[in-house]
Amino acid sequence: MKPTLSLILFFFQLNLFAQSALVRQVRNYRIDHEHQLLDEFMGLVSIPNIVGDAEGIRQTGKYIMEMMEARGIKASKLEGITPGIPPVIYGEVLVPGAKKTITFYAHYDGQPVNARQWAEGIEPFKSVFLNASLENRGKIIPRPSGDQTINPEWRIYGRSTSDDKAGVFVILTAYEVLKKLGGTPSVNLKFFFEGEEEAGSPHLAEILEKHQDKLQSDLWIICDGPVHQSGLKQVVFGVRGDVNMQVTVLGSKRPLHSGHYGNWAPNPAMNLIKLLASMKDDEGKVLIKGFYDDVIPLTAVEKKAMEAVPSVEDQLKEELAFIKADGDGRSLVELIQLPSLNINGMASANVGKLSANVIPTYATANLDLRLVLGNDAQKQIQKVIEHIKSQEYYVTEKEVTDEERRTYPRIAVVTYGQGYNAQRTRMDLPIAQDVIRAVRSTTGEQVVLMPTLGGSLPLFLFEKYLHTPTITVPIANHDNNQHAENENIRIQNLWNGIETYVGLMKM
Amino acid sequence: MKPTLSLILFFFQLNLFAQSALVRQVRNYRIDHEHQLLDEFMGLVSIPNIVGDAEGIRQTGKYIMEMMEARGIKASKLEGITPGIPPVIYGEVLVPGAKKTITFYAHYDGQPVNARQWAEGIEPFKSVFLNASLENRGKIIPRPSGDQTINPEWRIYGRSTSDDKAGVFVILTAYEVLKKLGGTPSVNLKFFFEGEEEAGSPHLAEILEKHQDKLQSDLWIICDGPVHQSGLKQVVFGVRGDVNMQVTVLGSKRPLHSGHYGNWAPNPAMNLIKLLASMKDDEGKVLIKGFYDDVIPLTAVEKKAMEAVPSVEDQLKEELAFIKADGDGRSLVELIQLPSLNINGMASANVGKLSANVIPTYATANLDLRLVLGNDAQKQIQKVIEHIKSQEYYVTEKEVTDEERRTYPRIAVVTYGQGYNAQRTRMDLPIAQDVIRAVRSTTGEQVVLMPTLGGSLPLFLFEKYLHTPTITVPIANHDNNQHAENENIRIQNLWNGIETYVGLMKM
Repeated sequence: MKPTLSLILFFFQLNLFAQSALVRQVRNYRIDHEHQLLDEFMGLVSIPNIVGDAEGIRQTGKYIMEMMEARGIKASKLEGITPGIPPVIYGEVLVPGAKKTITFYAHYDGQPVNARQWAEGIEPFKSVFLNASLENRGKIIPRPSGDQTINPEWRIYGRSTSDDKAGVFVILTAYEVLKKLGGTPSVNLKFFFEGEEEAGSPHLAEILEKHQDKLQSDLWIICDGPVHQSGLKQVVFGVRGDVNMQVTVLGSKRPLHSGHYGNWAPNPAMNLIKLLASMKDDEGKVLIKGFYDDVIPLTAVEKKAMEAVPSVEDQLKEELAFIKADGDGRSLVELIQLPSLNINGMASANVGKLSANVIPTYATANLDLRLVLGNDAQKQIQKVIEHIKSQEYYVTEKEVTDEERRTYPRIAVVTYGQGYNAQRTRMDLPIAQDVIRAVRSTTGEQVVLMPTLGGSLPLFLFEKYLHTPTITVPIANHDNNQHAENENIRIQNLWNGIETYVGLMKM
Repeated sequence: MKPTLSLILFFFQLNLFAQSALVRQVRNYRIDHEHQLLDEFMGLVSIPNIVGDAEGIRQTGKYIMEMMEARGIKASKLEGITPGIPPVIYGEVLVPGAKKTITFYAHYDGQPVNARQWAEGIEPFKSVFLNASLENRGKIIPRPSGDQTINPEWRIYGRSTSDDKAGVFVILTAYEVLKKLGGTPSVNLKFFFEGEEEAGSPHLAEILEKHQDKLQSDLWIICDGPVHQSGLKQVVFGVRGDVNMQVTVLGSKRPLHSGHYGNWAPNPAMNLIKLLASMKDDEGKVLIKGFYDDVIPLTAVEKKAMEAVPSVEDQLKEELAFIKADGDGRSLVELIQLPSLNINGMASANVGKLSANVIPTYATANLDLRLVLGNDAQKQIQKVIEHIKSQEYYVTEKEVTDEERRTYPRIAVVTYGQGYNAQRTRMDLPIAQDVIRAVRSTTGEQVVLMPTLGGSLPLFLFEKYLHTPTITVPIANHDNNQHAENENIRIQNLWNGIETYVGLMKM
């Protein structure tokens, strides 16, 4: 029985600070007010907030300011230098005698949507209830009426339900509940809600720089991303960086009949395929020269934390219904500590019913490069471009002229974003230990300590412009379809999130 | 100066039967009536005729029957056995004393259209005039009014302008002009216009079989496809067969965030790419086992004809604006004598503005297999399927269950059409020689004799069910964008086509 005993001891050790009386109070308050809480959340998720849609973003920001004012927080907009950019929605609560200031970050913009790809009856901005996830054969159910018990396993579907309106809602609701219970935060609070995270936060730097003085604090807590796939709460000390590129390979100037010219005219779809196939081996290892150089390895403390992360591979494979993962048998958490190259989308001519017997004129792929500590976004892009050139491609960013088409045997139009680098906060900082303790106080279970999240946020900017560390405390369910069609949030995750953030405000 | 002299002698030899007086009469008649002729053609091309669109196909058939009745040809519909299939529009002209009967074939259905892919101002069924091809910076011009001279270099844009309403129009107009000039055909004429060629003629066999007696003739002349890229008229003795397949590679059951899971979750786009990349080498040679087996080589006569085909590679590369062709330096005409494998379209998640940071759930490619004499469509498909299996894929045609997803490391959903085989008529048949002579009588230039056209028609069926040879005499310009967006016909090709077909009716 020894393994079981040591497991119990292990859990005991992790839960030195078990659930507090405050958490029980928060839970009871929430149970009494959950319809009212959900009404406000659904109001928020019903406003279209696609990144770059100025009007939708404006409306969403307005709603959040109203939420803040209703809580007695004076809300304001932090503009940058560039005119017309989506403002940060900002507010603060100063607590007499507090020795620390914590800034709570979430973003209120959402990923683009292709409504046709969403399941029948589910629209990106209608906040539809399902009695389980689609993958578990969940069915659409009516919005619960006021006297109906809300099953916490139900889900709300819609763009940004998880990423990241849930973050905005949970932060503001944690403060509200704490206040309604007659409590006060133990730290000064600042609220910072960004409006163009999904575009890669192109103006965050200028906003941080411009409002440097106002934004001073001891720590930024980022509410974005999912809890651990095991369902356990997690505290995340770093994020991967991210940069996107688009590669378009050109063929003939006009589309050709695949009978009359097929064997002779170059097929750009096949050429793109050959090019992309040369970038990775069959196990998913990137073959681009120097791709894994520059990586700063984990510290001993981080390595130890990583080894304590529960294994989720079998559970995920069951849930996602596949049996062969990339990465040659290594664990998900281990692989996430490395830079990645992924195809996000690919298109050439038409498939399915619209497919015709043609040789396409071009083929396009959108690539996503994730970066870890040590990588530089633009350097990583250049490695890919050098690889494309090594495959005998002429690479240009501009529209291609006929002259160029008649000069180079292979042409790739490559465009890319600015992207941003990874960030990692040391787990052994005293304030990091405070955060770990606070989150542990809100749960009876293990809290996963994750050196680096797979996803990305431009957290390096907070270090660069404010010299302040960041720690991410996510709340969404891991199977939330973030960034894709059928995004959703499990209601229990909202409830857990409120408890977690109350804990953080009392840390 | 010897090469020039021998060139002249060569042309003289080919033009033993130079343009006849009849051709001059036809030309003069056409010049006097070209507005009227174009009006009828434009009426035809304005009717949507997308294959499978029952109502559009019915309307198109109706218009053609009216064209026939206007020429004094009794038009009827030939149905098959399967109820509700698009009928063949049929008619005949019996000529007292004629010793031969020729059936003229064209089809009145068109390829699918994705209207968004067409150039601005050009709609698939509006028959828009341009003063040159789009590729030559052609601009949209108003439809010419009755007193305006029609420049034969102008083009009419729209689906099926070339493929194959031009065929229907030219056949019926050749007969009309001959009649108006007081002439009579030298052979009995049968007109046979098919309504679902672009779907692979799935019911042609049953129609031919059912109407075997009515359809007896000495030769079928097929009016479909383009003249030679050199601009020269061509007589084509065979066509490639064709069969399409769709390959979908599956990944995770639900879309995944490319940050949180990228490096570990399998990417179906990358897996499809690896699979397709394994099918061809960098020069376009198909690597699938046995792909080039079964091919029946050209006869000595066919080889000689092939060698006399003018070289067009440099002209085409200039026109299409690329410099590297597939096929390791071999000529287009030589490559067309081989089976091919082409990607017609490819898709996975989204590209461009809709692209999001996801790992797609599946990736699809539509493939086109062209076949030459000796290949069997289903056998060729099986070779590809065996190849997919050899890459460790589980192949199924059906919807994939979670059980299957959890059993097989790699899954490909492969569906395919019935397709049809290639056909080739011997050039040394007496009736083939008659056709060559007739076409030569309508031009002062070389007539290209092509053993096999790159494109496909189910011509083997005429041999199988009617024991009748077929010869294709195409009329469209080669740069017609057949099957793709921005399909068009050069007006001069309509005029030349009418002359060619008058020649054939007097052969």
